[in-house]
Amino acid sequence: MKYLHTMVRVGDLDRSLTFYRDALGLEEISRKDVSQGRYTLVFLAAPGDHAAQVELTFNWDPESYQGGRNFGHLAYGVENIYASCQRLMDHGVTVLRPPRDGRMAFVRSPDGISIELLQQGPALPPAEPWASMPNSGTW
Amino acid sequence: MKYLHTMVRVGDLDRSLTFYRDALGLEEISRKDVSQGRYTLVFLAAPGDHAAQVELTFNWDPESYQGGRNFGHLAYGVENIYASCQRLMDHGVTVLRPPRDGRMAFVRSPDGISIELLQQGPALPPAEPWASMPNSGTW
Repeated sequence: MKYLHTMVRVGDLDRSLTFYRDALGLEEISRKDVSQGRYTLVFLAAPGDHAAQVELTFNWDPESYQGGRNFGHLAYGVENIYASCQRLMDHGVTVLRPPRDGRMAFVRSPDGISIELLQQGPALPPAEPWASMPNSGTW
Repeated sequence: MKYLHTMVRVGDLDRSLTFYRDALGLEEISRKDVSQGRYTLVFLAAPGDHAAQVELTFNWDPESYQGGRNFGHLAYGVENIYASCQRLMDHGVTVLRPPRDGRMAFVRSPDGISIELLQQGPALPPAEPWASMPNSGTW
């Protein structure tokens, strides 16, 4: 038995690829346009860890997606949490829970999917601007 | 960068362990009771694939969890989809989308988290009772 992917629905594919690929740093592995079903599937994964994927489902007929409380978040380990958060901010993503502790951060996708970033190995030494950055919203 | 886990919230830990561990077949990897925060975390993973985990968050103060449309499902590859579905049914889980095609099935956790099972490799030959089993509900 083997974990394959987590599927999330996205209301705007371009905006979601900016988030998951350009800002978060996942790689696009494959894509499938299904014109009969009027949807597109895009599979992404962390570089060097292609086995565990996230599947974006984009329905061509517009729909706005809300979250529920039963789903919590997706978590990724990163090599440098400050660099990861800077990349997210450079793409206009608000770091809702900044890595003040050099260890943990949270952001949300355009559709409200919560993403946890965890520094792999020991926490980094506290550093600005993160150390004094307040929380925003919920995650 | 590395995928670590998907976190889901559970309203009843025992019932959820019956589902994720006994019925679905994941293994408990670790558990943490945090009395100060009044919650328990249980990490589970597929046997032989411990890197990609699911984190159950059980808050001790009762809460009922609903789903939202932005989260879709968790997907697992299985060796024999009929055996996996039989095990789920033996534990009282309704197979919402039976594997009529010998390839794909869907169930839901007690908190409504949709789980997709996919036969690894080629589809199995159609077989009863699955081939003539109707869909139930949504997934």
